[in-house]
Amino acid sequence: MGLANTPAPPYYAVVFTSQRTEKEPDSYYAMAEKMVRLASEQPGFLGVESAREDNGLGITVSYWDSLEAIRLWKQNIEHLEAQEKGKTGWYASYFTRISKVERDYSNFFS
Amino acid sequence: MGLANTPAPPYYAVVFTSQRTEKEPDSYYAMAEKMVRLASEQPGFLGVESAREDNGLGITVSYWDSLEAIRLWKQNIEHLEAQEKGKTGWYASYFTRISKVERDYSNFFS
Repeated sequence: MGLANTPAPPYYAVVFTSQRTEKEPDSYYAMAEKMVRLASEQPGFLGVESAREDNGLGITVSYWDSLEAIRLWKQNIEHLEAQEKGKTGWYASYFTRISKVERDYSNFFS
Repeated sequence: MGLANTPAPPYYAVVFTSQRTEKEPDSYYAMAEKMVRLASEQPGFLGVESAREDNGLGITVSYWDSLEAIRLWKQNIEHLEAQEKGKTGWYASYFTRISKVERDYSNFFS
């Protein structure tokens, strides 16, 4: 996974910042990979970028073409299960921000 | 640096995604730290979150109270120098997205 080749704005970004606990690294990584794969199959998905420090702080940004697409993904049943496990074990803390991308620039895609 | 304790929306997020080259790691890290310190002293700064993978893919999200604050920070002279070095050496690729945070939720701050 590298930089996401999103279309011209406007579109939406979900910025998910989290601090991992040290619980269940194997099942966590398996679920994280599965969620990326599953998200990328949803209607309105535009891309995803993710990075995590060795100290457990991570940022995942997913891009979507509408708030409705974000709402549907949030309510996806497998995603709901992952969210629950995140809240009860994998994440010491997390912050989700839903934002509208108004402008972008890059040296990479054009 | 951990999660940013931002105020209630709306506010703005600058999502900066980059792929590092392997050039000049020491001077890069010194500059990255300096930019975080400098950004945090600017008017309208609300917080910053950052993570980078061992493979060099990184995401830094800075939060601001207005587009004007973002514009002023982008034009800060020391920041302009850092941007130039980023373009010409430190980053193989980068993507900057300016977005308006409309909604957020967290288990951490309230």
